[in-house]
Amino acid sequence: MKLYDDKLAPNPRRVRIFLAEKGVSVPVVNVEIFKNEHKTPEYRKLNALSGVPVLELDDGDVIAETVAICRYFEEMHPEPPMFGVDMRDRAKVEMWNRRMELSLFVPVAMVMRHTHPRLAALQTQFKDWGEYNKGVVAKIWTWLDRELSDGRPFIAGQRYTIADITALCAADFAKFARVPWGAEHPHVQSWHDRVSARPSAKA
Amino acid sequence: MKLYDDKLAPNPRRVRIFLAEKGVSVPVVNVEIFKNEHKTPEYRKLNALSGVPVLELDDGDVIAETVAICRYFEEMHPEPPMFGVDMRDRAKVEMWNRRMELSLFVPVAMVMRHTHPRLAALQTQFKDWGEYNKGVVAKIWTWLDRELSDGRPFIAGQRYTIADITALCAADFAKFARVPWGAEHPHVQSWHDRVSARPSAKA
Repeated sequence: MKLYDDKLAPNPRRVRIFLAEKGVSVPVVNVEIFKNEHKTPEYRKLNALSGVPVLELDDGDVIAETVAICRYFEEMHPEPPMFGVDMRDRAKVEMWNRRMELSLFVPVAMVMRHTHPRLAALQTQFKDWGEYNKGVVAKIWTWLDRELSDGRPFIAGQRYTIADITALCAADFAKFARVPWGAEHPHVQSWHDRVSARPSAKA
Repeated sequence: MKLYDDKLAPNPRRVRIFLAEKGVSVPVVNVEIFKNEHKTPEYRKLNALSGVPVLELDDGDVIAETVAICRYFEEMHPEPPMFGVDMRDRAKVEMWNRRMELSLFVPVAMVMRHTHPRLAALQTQFKDWGEYNKGVVAKIWTWLDRELSDGRPFIAGQRYTIADITALCAADFAKFARVPWGAEHPHVQSWHDRVSARPSAKA
Protein backbone atom coordinates (compact mmCIF):
# COMPACT_ATOMS: atom_id res chain seq x y z
CA MET A 1 0.00 0.00 0.00
CA LYS A 2 0.95 3.66 -0.43
CA LEU A 3 -0.02 6.69 1.62
CA TYR A 4 -0.33 9.99 -0.25
CA ASP A 5 0.88 12.56 2.25
CA ASP A 6 1.59 16.28 2.62
CA LYS A 7 4.07 17.38 5.29
CA LEU A 8 2.48 20.82 5.91
CA ALA A 9 -1.26 20.16 5.99
CA PRO A 10 -2.99 19.16 9.26
CA ASN A 11 -5.09 16.22 8.03
CA PRO A 12 -2.20 14.11 6.70
CA ARG A 13 -0.44 14.74 10.02
CA ARG A 14 -3.38 13.11 11.83
CA VAL A 15 -2.69 9.86 9.93
CA ARG A 16 1.08 10.08 10.52
CA ILE A 17 0.58 10.49 14.29
CA PHE A 18 -1.96 7.64 14.28
CA LEU A 19 0.53 5.33 12.53
CA ALA A 20 3.33 6.40 14.89
CA GLU A 21 1.17 5.54 17.91
CA LYS A 22 0.49 2.12 16.35
CA GLY A 23 4.16 1.62 15.47
CA VAL A 24 3.22 1.04 11.82
CA SER A 25 5.25 2.22 8.86
CA VAL A 26 3.74 2.72 5.38
CA PRO A 27 5.47 3.82 2.14
CA VAL A 28 4.69 7.46 1.40
CA VAL A 29 4.15 9.47 -1.80
CA ASN A 30 4.50 13.21 -1.21
CA VAL A 31 1.80 15.52 -2.60
CA GLU A 32 2.44 19.23 -2.12
CA ILE A 33 -0.85 21.05 -1.69
CA PHE A 34 0.86 24.47 -1.85
CA LYS A 35 2.08 23.48 -5.33
CA ASN A 36 -1.44 22.34 -6.30
CA GLU A 37 -0.19 18.78 -6.79
CA HIS A 38 -3.52 17.52 -5.38
CA LYS A 39 -5.32 19.06 -8.34
CA THR A 40 -3.46 17.32 -11.18
CA PRO A 41 -5.48 14.95 -13.42
CA GLU A 42 -3.32 12.10 -12.13
CA TYR A 43 -4.13 12.77 -8.47
CA ARG A 44 -7.80 13.34 -9.27
CA LYS A 45 -7.90 9.81 -10.67
CA LEU A 46 -7.12 8.63 -7.13
CA ASN A 47 -9.47 11.11 -5.45
CA ALA A 48 -11.71 13.29 -7.62
CA LEU A 49 -12.34 15.51 -4.57
CA SER A 50 -8.56 16.22 -4.33
CA GLY A 51 -8.39 15.55 -0.59
CA VAL A 52 -5.06 14.54 0.97
CA PRO A 53 -4.31 12.02 2.54
CA VAL A 54 -5.32 9.01 0.43
CA LEU A 55 -4.43 5.36 1.02
CA GLU A 56 -3.91 3.29 -2.14
CA LEU A 57 -4.15 -0.46 -1.54
CA ASP A 58 -2.08 -3.04 -3.40
CA ASP A 59 -4.98 -3.91 -5.73
CA GLY A 60 -5.40 -0.24 -6.67
CA ASP A 61 -8.47 0.34 -4.48
CA VAL A 62 -8.45 3.72 -2.73
CA ILE A 63 -9.50 4.80 0.76
CA ALA A 64 -9.83 8.56 1.15
CA GLU A 65 -10.74 10.64 4.22
CA THR A 66 -8.43 10.85 7.23
CA VAL A 67 -10.62 9.00 9.72
CA ALA A 68 -11.52 6.25 7.23
CA ILE A 69 -7.80 5.59 6.74
CA CYS A 70 -7.25 5.53 10.51
CA ARG A 71 -10.16 3.15 11.03
CA TYR A 72 -8.71 0.79 8.41
CA PHE A 73 -5.38 0.70 10.27
CA GLU A 74 -7.21 0.29 13.60
CA GLU A 75 -8.72 -2.97 12.34
CA MET A 76 -5.43 -4.16 10.85
CA HIS A 77 -3.43 -3.24 13.98
CA PRO A 78 -5.86 -3.18 16.93
CA GLU A 79 -3.25 -2.35 19.59
CA PRO A 80 -3.16 0.12 21.20
CA PRO A 81 -6.87 0.86 20.67
CA MET A 82 -7.38 4.42 19.44
CA PHE A 83 -11.17 4.38 18.87
CA GLY A 84 -12.25 3.17 22.32
CA VAL A 85 -12.37 -0.15 24.16
CA ASP A 86 -16.07 -0.99 24.68
CA MET A 87 -19.47 0.07 23.36
CA ARG A 88 -19.90 3.18 25.45
CA ASP A 89 -16.25 4.20 25.20
CA ARG A 90 -16.32 3.86 21.40
CA ALA A 91 -19.39 6.13 21.27
CA LYS A 92 -17.63 8.64 23.55
CA VAL A 93 -14.45 8.61 21.44
CA GLU A 94 -16.55 9.16 18.30
CA MET A 95 -18.32 12.04 20.07
CA TRP A 96 -15.09 13.67 21.19
CA ASN A 97 -13.34 13.16 17.87
CA ARG A 98 -16.27 14.80 16.10
CA ARG A 99 -16.40 17.65 18.60
CA MET A 100 -12.70 18.27 17.98
CA GLU A 101 -13.33 18.19 14.22
CA LEU A 102 -16.60 20.09 13.91
CA SER A 103 -16.28 22.56 16.77
CA LEU A 104 -12.50 23.19 16.76
CA PHE A 105 -10.80 22.03 13.56
CA VAL A 106 -13.46 23.40 11.17
CA PRO A 107 -13.60 26.98 12.57
CA VAL A 108 -9.78 27.05 12.77
CA ALA A 109 -9.69 26.00 9.10
CA MET A 110 -12.19 28.77 8.26
CA VAL A 111 -9.92 31.34 9.97
CA MET A 112 -6.89 29.98 8.14
CA ARG A 113 -8.51 29.73 4.75
CA HIS A 114 -10.27 33.10 4.84
CA THR A 115 -7.77 35.33 6.66
CA HIS A 116 -4.23 33.95 6.26
CA PRO A 117 -2.18 35.74 3.56
CA ARG A 118 -0.62 32.45 2.51
CA LEU A 119 -3.98 30.99 1.46
CA ALA A 120 -5.05 34.04 -0.57
CA ALA A 121 -3.26 32.74 -3.65
CA LEU A 122 -4.96 29.33 -3.50
CA GLN A 123 -8.59 30.13 -2.72
CA THR A 124 -11.25 32.85 -2.73
CA GLN A 125 -11.22 34.41 0.73
CA PHE A 126 -14.28 35.81 2.51
CA LYS A 127 -12.53 37.87 5.16
CA ASP A 128 -15.56 38.82 7.27
CA TRP A 129 -16.48 35.14 7.62
CA GLY A 130 -12.89 34.35 8.56
CA GLU A 131 -12.86 37.13 11.18
CA TYR A 132 -16.16 35.90 12.62
CA ASN A 133 -14.63 32.44 13.08
CA LYS A 134 -11.84 33.92 15.22
CA GLY A 135 -14.51 34.57 17.82
CA VAL A 136 -15.90 31.05 17.41
CA VAL A 137 -12.45 29.55 18.04
CA ALA A 138 -11.90 31.77 21.11
CA LYS A 139 -15.15 30.51 22.65
CA ILE A 140 -14.25 26.89 21.93
CA TRP A 141 -10.91 27.21 23.77
CA THR A 142 -12.84 28.45 26.81
CA TRP A 143 -15.35 25.59 26.53
CA LEU A 144 -12.55 23.01 26.08
CA ASP A 145 -10.60 24.38 29.03
CA ARG A 146 -13.67 24.01 31.24
CA GLU A 147 -14.19 20.44 29.97
CA LEU A 148 -10.59 19.49 30.76
CA SER A 149 -10.76 21.12 34.20
CA ASP A 150 -12.13 17.81 35.58
CA GLY A 151 -8.54 16.62 35.60
CA ARG A 152 -8.77 13.90 32.96
CA PRO A 153 -5.49 13.51 31.09
CA PHE A 154 -6.91 13.11 27.58
CA ILE A 155 -9.72 14.57 25.48
CA ALA A 156 -12.04 11.55 25.71
CA GLY A 157 -11.02 10.37 29.18
CA GLN A 158 -8.25 8.28 30.71
CA ARG A 159 -6.77 6.99 27.45
CA TYR A 160 -5.03 8.67 24.53
CA THR A 161 -7.31 8.30 21.47
CA ILE A 162 -7.88 9.59 17.97
CA ALA A 163 -9.69 12.56 19.58
CA ASP A 164 -6.33 13.70 21.02
CA ILE A 165 -4.74 13.42 17.59
CA THR A 166 -7.48 15.51 15.98
CA ALA A 167 -7.28 18.07 18.78
CA LEU A 168 -3.47 18.26 18.67
CA CYS A 169 -3.43 18.83 14.91
CA ALA A 170 -6.21 21.40 15.23
CA ALA A 171 -4.38 23.15 18.11
CA ASP A 172 -1.08 23.40 16.22
CA PHE A 173 -2.99 24.50 13.12
CA ALA A 174 -4.65 27.18 15.29
CA LYS A 175 -1.21 28.50 16.28
CA PHE A 176 -0.30 28.75 12.60
CA ALA A 177 -3.66 30.44 11.85
CA ARG A 178 -2.96 32.88 14.73
CA VAL A 179 -5.89 31.82 16.90
CA PRO A 180 -4.15 29.81 19.65
CA TRP A 181 -5.45 29.18 23.16
CA GLY A 182 -4.11 31.55 25.83
CA ALA A 183 -2.72 31.81 29.35
CA GLU A 184 -6.32 31.78 30.58
CA HIS A 185 -6.64 28.17 29.39
CA PRO A 186 -4.26 26.27 31.71
CA HIS A 187 -5.99 22.90 31.24
CA VAL A 188 -5.68 23.12 27.47
CA GLN A 189 -2.03 24.06 27.95
CA SER A 190 -1.22 21.08 30.18
CA TRP A 191 -3.10 18.70 27.86
CA HIS A 192 -1.15 20.16 24.90
CA ASP A 193 2.15 19.75 26.77
CA ARG A 194 1.23 16.13 27.56
CA VAL A 195 0.31 15.05 24.01
CA SER A 196 3.11 17.08 22.40
CA ALA A 197 5.68 15.25 24.55
CA ARG A 198 4.78 11.90 22.99
CA PRO A 199 7.21 10.81 20.26
CA SER A 200 4.26 10.53 17.81
CA ALA A 201 3.77 14.32 17.89
CA LYS A 202 6.89 14.70 15.76
CA ALA A 203 5.38 12.58 12.98
CA MET B 1 -32.65 6.17 27.62
CA LYS B 2 -34.02 9.36 26.03
CA LEU B 3 -33.33 10.88 22.63
CA TYR B 4 -33.45 14.68 22.41
CA ASP B 5 -34.85 15.32 18.96
CA ASP B 6 -35.98 18.15 16.65
CA LYS B 7 -38.46 17.35 13.91
CA LEU B 8 -37.24 20.04 11.46
CA ALA B 9 -33.43 19.86 11.61
CA PRO B 10 -31.51 17.45 9.37
CA ASN B 11 -29.14 15.91 11.93
CA PRO B 12 -31.82 14.55 14.28
CA ARG B 13 -33.54 13.08 11.21
CA ARG B 14 -30.37 11.07 10.49
CA VAL B 15 -30.77 9.32 13.86
CA ARG B 16 -34.52 8.76 13.37
CA ILE B 17 -33.93 7.12 9.97
CA PHE B 18 -31.10 5.02 11.42
CA LEU B 19 -33.37 3.76 14.22
CA ALA B 20 -36.21 3.06 11.76
CA GLU B 21 -33.84 0.96 9.62
CA LYS B 22 -32.85 -0.97 12.75
CA GLY B 23 -36.47 -1.32 13.89
CA VAL B 24 -35.59 0.28 17.23
CA SER B 25 -37.84 2.64 19.16
CA VAL B 26 -36.51 5.10 21.76
CA PRO B 27 -38.45 7.59 23.94
CA VAL B 28 -38.11 11.11 22.55
CA VAL B 29 -37.90 14.58 24.12
CA ASN B 30 -38.63 17.34 21.61
CA VAL B 31 -36.25 20.31 21.45
CA GLU B 32 -37.28 23.07 19.04
CA ILE B 33 -34.20 24.72 17.59
CA PHE B 34 -36.28 27.45 15.93
CA LYS B 35 -37.50 28.40 19.41
CA ASN B 36 -33.91 28.36 20.75
CA GLU B 37 -34.78 25.53 23.13
CA HIS B 38 -31.29 24.07 22.51
CA LYS B 39 -29.75 27.16 24.11
CA THR B 40 -31.50 27.04 27.48
CA PRO B 41 -29.31 26.52 30.59
CA GLU B 42 -31.11 23.20 31.13
CA TYR B 43 -30.24 21.86 27.66
CA ARG B 44 -26.70 23.17 27.92
CA LYS B 45 -26.25 21.01 31.00
CA LEU B 46 -26.78 18.02 28.69
CA ASN B 47 -24.66 19.45 25.87
CA ALA B 48 -22.75 22.68 26.41
CA LEU B 49 -22.28 22.95 22.65
CA SER B 50 -26.10 22.98 22.18
CA GLY B 51 -26.08 20.37 19.40
CA VAL B 52 -29.21 18.32 18.76
CA PRO B 53 -29.63 15.29 18.84
CA VAL B 54 -28.36 14.05 22.19
CA LEU B 55 -28.83 10.58 23.71
CA GLU B 56 -29.22 10.51 27.51
CA LEU B 57 -28.54 7.09 29.02
CA ASP B 58 -30.37 5.72 32.05
CA ASP B 59 -27.48 6.58 34.38
CA GLY B 60 -27.48 10.19 33.16
CA ASP B 61 -24.44 9.83 30.92
CA VAL B 62 -24.78 11.70 27.62
CA ILE B 63 -23.74 10.83 24.07
CA ALA B 64 -23.81 13.79 21.69
CA GLU B 65 -23.03 13.96 17.96
CA THR B 66 -25.26 12.25 15.41
CA VAL B 67 -22.80 9.59 14.24
CA ALA B 68 -21.68 8.76 17.79
CA ILE B 69 -25.32 8.05 18.69
CA CYS B 70 -25.75 5.91 15.56
CA ARG B 71 -22.57 3.97 16.33
CA TYR B 72 -23.83 3.26 19.86
CA PHE B 73 -27.06 1.80 18.45
CA GLU B 74 -25.09 -0.14 15.81
CA GLU B 75 -23.27 -2.00 18.58
CA MET B 76 -26.45 -2.56 20.59
CA HIS B 77 -28.44 -3.72 17.53
CA PRO B 78 -25.94 -4.99 14.93
CA GLU B 79 -28.55 -6.06 12.33
CA PRO B 80 -28.84 -4.87 9.64
CA PRO B 81 -25.26 -3.54 9.57
CA MET B 82 -25.18 0.16 8.65
CA PHE B 83 -21.43 0.85 9.04
CA GLY B 84 -20.10 -1.91 6.75
CA VAL B 85 -19.57 -5.66 7.01
CA ASP B 86 -15.80 -6.23 6.89
CA MET B 87 -12.56 -4.27 7.32
CA ARG B 88 -12.43 -2.74 3.86
CA ASP B 89 -16.18 -2.18 3.64
CA ARG B 90 -16.19 -0.40 7.01
CA ALA B 91 -13.40 1.91 5.79
CA LYS B 92 -15.36 2.59 2.59
CA VAL B 93 -18.57 3.35 4.48
CA GLU B 94 -16.65 5.73 6.75
CA MET B 95 -15.15 7.37 3.64
CA TRP B 96 -18.52 7.79 1.93
CA ASN B 97 -20.30 8.95 5.05
CA ARG B 98 -17.62 11.59 5.55
CA ARG B 99 -17.72 12.63 1.90
CA MET B 100 -21.49 13.08 2.21
CA GLU B 101 -20.97 15.11 5.39
CA LEU B 102 -17.96 17.23 4.51
CA SER B 103 -18.45 17.71 0.77
CA LEU B 104 -22.27 17.81 0.57
CA PHE B 105 -23.93 18.40 3.94
CA VAL B 106 -21.52 21.13 5.12
CA PRO B 107 -21.74 23.36 2.00
CA VAL B 108 -25.54 22.89 1.93
CA ALA B 109 -25.61 23.98 5.58
CA MET B 110 -23.48 27.02 4.70
CA VAL B 111 -25.96 27.99 1.96
CA MET B 112 -28.90 27.51 4.32
CA ARG B 113 -27.34 29.32 7.24
CA HIS B 114 -25.98 32.26 5.29
CA THR B 115 -28.65 32.86 2.63
CA HIS B 116 -32.02 31.54 3.82
CA PRO B 117 -34.34 34.24 5.20
CA ARG B 118 -35.57 31.90 7.93
CA LEU B 119 -32.09 31.64 9.47
CA ALA B 120 -31.44 35.39 9.49
CA ALA B 121 -33.18 35.79 12.86
CA LEU B 122 -31.09 33.05 14.53
CA GLN B 123 -27.55 33.72 13.29
CA THR B 124 -25.22 36.28 11.75
CA GLN B 125 -25.32 35.69 7.99
CA PHE B 126 -22.38 36.23 5.64
CA LYS B 127 -24.24 36.32 2.36
CA ASP B 128 -21.28 36.30 -0.04
CA TRP B 129 -19.93 33.16 1.63
CA GLY B 130 -23.40 31.60 1.39
CA GLU B 131 -23.64 32.49 -2.31
CA TYR B 132 -20.17 31.03 -2.96
CA ASN B 133 -21.30 27.75 -1.42
CA LYS B 134 -24.18 27.52 -3.91
CA GLY B 135 -21.51 26.94 -6.55
CA VAL B 136 -19.75 24.39 -4.34
CA VAL B 137 -22.99 22.42 -3.94
CA ALA B 138 -23.68 22.54 -7.70
CA LYS B 139 -20.26 21.01 -8.42
CA ILE B 140 -20.80 18.29 -5.82
CA TRP B 141 -24.08 17.21 -7.44
CA THR B 142 -22.21 16.79 -10.74
CA TRP B 143 -19.41 14.83 -9.03
CA LEU B 144 -21.90 12.61 -7.17
CA ASP B 145 -23.90 11.95 -10.33
CA ARG B 146 -20.73 10.79 -12.07
CA GLU B 147 -19.86 8.57 -9.08
CA LEU B 148 -23.31 6.94 -9.12
CA SER B 149 -23.20 6.44 -12.91
CA ASP B 150 -21.43 3.09 -12.32
CA GLY B 151 -24.87 1.68 -11.57
CA ARG B 152 -24.42 0.88 -7.88
CA PRO B 153 -27.71 1.21 -6.00
CA PHE B 154 -26.36 2.94 -2.87
CA ILE B 155 -23.80 5.60 -1.99
CA ALA B 156 -21.15 3.22 -0.62
CA GLY B 157 -21.90 0.24 -2.88
CA GLN B 158 -24.38 -2.64 -2.94
CA ARG B 159 -25.82 -2.11 0.56
CA TYR B 160 -27.83 0.67 2.15
CA THR B 161 -25.63 2.27 4.85
CA ILE B 162 -25.30 5.32 7.08
CA ALA B 163 -23.80 7.12 4.06
CA ASP B 164 -27.21 6.91 2.34
CA ILE B 165 -28.87 8.35 5.43
CA THR B 166 -26.44 11.27 5.55
CA ALA B 167 -26.82 11.87 1.82
CA LEU B 168 -30.64 11.66 1.93
CA CYS B 169 -30.87 14.16 4.80
CA ALA B 170 -28.37 16.45 3.03
CA ALA B 171 -30.29 16.14 -0.26
CA ASP B 172 -33.66 17.00 1.28
CA PHE B 173 -31.98 19.83 3.25
CA ALA B 174 -30.57 21.05 -0.10
CA LYS B 175 -34.09 21.24 -1.53
CA PHE B 176 -35.15 23.33 1.47
CA ALA B 177 -32.02 25.52 1.06
CA ARG B 178 -32.90 25.93 -2.65
CA VAL B 179 -29.78 24.18 -3.99
CA PRO B 180 -31.20 20.83 -5.17
CA TRP B 181 -29.73 18.54 -7.81
CA GLY B 182 -31.23 18.93 -11.30
CA ALA B 183 -32.53 17.08 -14.36
CA GLU B 184 -28.91 16.80 -15.48
CA HIS B 185 -28.22 14.46 -12.54
CA PRO B 186 -30.31 11.35 -13.37
CA HIS B 187 -28.24 9.01 -11.21
CA VAL B 188 -28.69 11.20 -8.15
CA GLN B 189 -32.41 11.31 -8.95
CA SER B 190 -32.80 7.53 -9.18
CA TRP B 191 -30.74 7.03 -6.00
CA HIS B 192 -32.94 9.62 -4.24
CA ASP B 193 -36.11 7.89 -5.48
CA ARG B 194 -34.77 4.57 -4.21
CA VAL B 195 -33.85 5.68 -0.68
CA SER B 196 -36.91 7.93 -0.33
CA ALA B 197 -39.19 4.96 -1.07
CA ARG B 198 -37.97 3.12 2.03
CA PRO B 199 -40.36 3.41 5.00
CA SER B 200 -37.48 4.82 7.10
CA ALA B 201 -37.41 7.99 4.97
CA LYS B 202 -40.61 9.14 6.66
CA ALA B 203 -38.97 9.00 10.08
